[in-house]
Amino acid sequence: MLELQSMSMRLHQGVLYLLDQTLLPHQQHWFAVPDVASLVEAIQRLQVRGAPAIGIAASLLLAVLASQGQSRQQLQHAAQTLRAARPTAVNLMNNIDSMLGAIAEEPLHQRVVETAMQLFLQDVALCSQLAEHGAALLQPGERVLTHCNTGGLATAGVGTALGVIAKAHQQGKGISVWVDETRPLLQGGRLTAWELSELGIPYQLICDNMAGMLMAQGRVDRIFVGADRIAANGDFANKVGTYSLAVLAQYHQVPFYVVAPSTTVDPTCPDGAAIPIEQRHADEVRGMQGAIGVDGSFQHSRWAPHDSAVYNPAFDVTPAGLVTGWVLEHGVFSQADIAAGALVRACTESRKR
Amino acid sequence: MLELQSMSMRLHQGVLYLLDQTLLPHQQHWFAVPDVASLVEAIQRLQVRGAPAIGIAASLLLAVLASQGQSRQQLQHAAQTLRAARPTAVNLMNNIDSMLGAIAEEPLHQRVVETAMQLFLQDVALCSQLAEHGAALLQPGERVLTHCNTGGLATAGVGTALGVIAKAHQQGKGISVWVDETRPLLQGGRLTAWELSELGIPYQLICDNMAGMLMAQGRVDRIFVGADRIAANGDFANKVGTYSLAVLAQYHQVPFYVVAPSTTVDPTCPDGAAIPIEQRHADEVRGMQGAIGVDGSFQHSRWAPHDSAVYNPAFDVTPAGLVTGWVLEHGVFSQADIAAGALVRACTESRKR
Repeated sequence: MLELQSMSMRLHQGVLYLLDQTLLPHQQHWFAVPDVASLVEAIQRLQVRGAPAIGIAASLLLAVLASQGQSRQQLQHAAQTLRAARPTAVNLMNNIDSMLGAIAEEPLHQRVVETAMQLFLQDVALCSQLAEHGAALLQPGERVLTHCNTGGLATAGVGTALGVIAKAHQQGKGISVWVDETRPLLQGGRLTAWELSELGIPYQLICDNMAGMLMAQGRVDRIFVGADRIAANGDFANKVGTYSLAVLAQYHQVPFYVVAPSTTVDPTCPDGAAIPIEQRHADEVRGMQGAIGVDGSFQHSRWAPHDSAVYNPAFDVTPAGLVTGWVLEHGVFSQADIAAGALVRACTESRKR
Repeated sequence: MLELQSMSMRLHQGVLYLLDQTLLPHQQHWFAVPDVASLVEAIQRLQVRGAPAIGIAASLLLAVLASQGQSRQQLQHAAQTLRAARPTAVNLMNNIDSMLGAIAEEPLHQRVVETAMQLFLQDVALCSQLAEHGAALLQPGERVLTHCNTGGLATAGVGTALGVIAKAHQQGKGISVWVDETRPLLQGGRLTAWELSELGIPYQLICDNMAGMLMAQGRVDRIFVGADRIAANGDFANKVGTYSLAVLAQYHQVPFYVVAPSTTVDPTCPDGAAIPIEQRHADEVRGMQGAIGVDGSFQHSRWAPHDSAVYNPAFDVTPAGLVTGWVLEHGVFSQADIAAGALVRACTESRKR
């Protein structure tokens, strides 16, 4: 089997390793994922996260299991279990469907391994295309706002929304970034801040509730976010807080873009109302879970009353009417393009190839 | 000297005690405040917080110092130091100005103590009046959203916005509450959740970035927030995040009310642009500071990179155009009332009395 390496995933000597994203930025700890149960737990605990990355990680594990000689039936069962690990992001389901196609083919081992490799390399290529299209939208010196983490940690490549930002920086556009910390799991404060530091891109970390006042002050030129599932009509689910940003962006006339590969489009989903939204554990909102401070150990801390009732949706849905443009590997789609069915058409063509 | 007790302040045998709000809800720890330096530190560390409460605490300390025989000059100096402890909330400045008036009178000790007592009792009365006026706006079964903490901890009385909620609950209106956790200092998650638990009022804690999607789902009937300073034109400063809520409320046609006594009005401040906004330390956004978990000790935790650049305004400004009504002790003012100068007139009349 080939050796593969992204910022958060590594296939080495037939073993899948993941970078534990709950310990960043304090510890860079890689751990082996030997079986389906381990990967489902890692996905649910967000040790691996990001819509493209969880799809790729699941595909790579199936390749590992095929290399170990698992039967077609075992692989099909593994694929179905992985497919259900998280309900909102559609990339996982799309990738698993590709893998199920390969599992039905001969020679079994070779087709499964090849398909997983292709999905990995395809994601790398898709990210690069998104980055090119998105970076072309940015003007020199712009101040970009982003939410959650959509960088190298969240994909096999350079990322989606954060890949756009990195590309514009490399092009010397002199941009700077406002980073929403992204409660409750703080992917912005922990992961995006770390990636931007590593890339040397100037940023300022803010609490999610500060984005509105920055827009009112005229200090946000453009917003880029990722997506976990894009419906046929252009509505999309993304990390909770995205919808509020979109409303605030429209009110302040700040251009608002969603950046995602066609693997994030669900052409069978007519609109946002049909996207299932994952509800997560109350303890995530009662406190903070992850690495804290200098010792870098994983901690459960709680500041709210232990019996607080909590509402904790992991995602929200942004209607197409609030989106300035959809950045896909095919280019940037406008509202008119989407209304004319461009999204579904482009997505269907991509999957034929 | 009289004995006085509120939820967060106690005057007992000539000593001022405060409930340490950085340790709630884990510990109920009262500490003595012997001098000006101690109170300034307690205000800056938010051990005592809430625009009315910090004004009352400063007034009570001046009464304590007067009882100990401090001279007029010493008291004037103490008052000026306290007046500058935090820049945004105007109640502190308004209360200190009342105290400076008393410090100029004879008999010194008696006038200072009397005035501090009056300010305390006045705040209790003002809160009750706000609660009556605000509760009359609420319909049975409504789901109210609030931000930060504006309850008994933040005032000498029942609170401002949270006092309204408590009153409506006591009236048997069967309301429930969405509580914004209110990053970065988590006054909602730590303090409002605790007060609501103590009062037996049903609530659900949310991250600040979830309020928008709840409004989109039609699950927020009304929003009540407090204020740290209200300008003559009705613009007001309040805990950061309030402005975003106001924009989201307008977009979703959710009635949005600010609840504050006339001691929060600054008639010399023409509009929101003239309100100074306090910037606080980056570490508040890089992590969380306060009591965490079962042992209840005060901790500095950090999840972001140690050198993250941060933007951390403690407050934002909501323009009058986004406000449905201003709940003062005089009643509920509309935009038309405010435009006709009702706010300044009411405030000036209150101070003549």
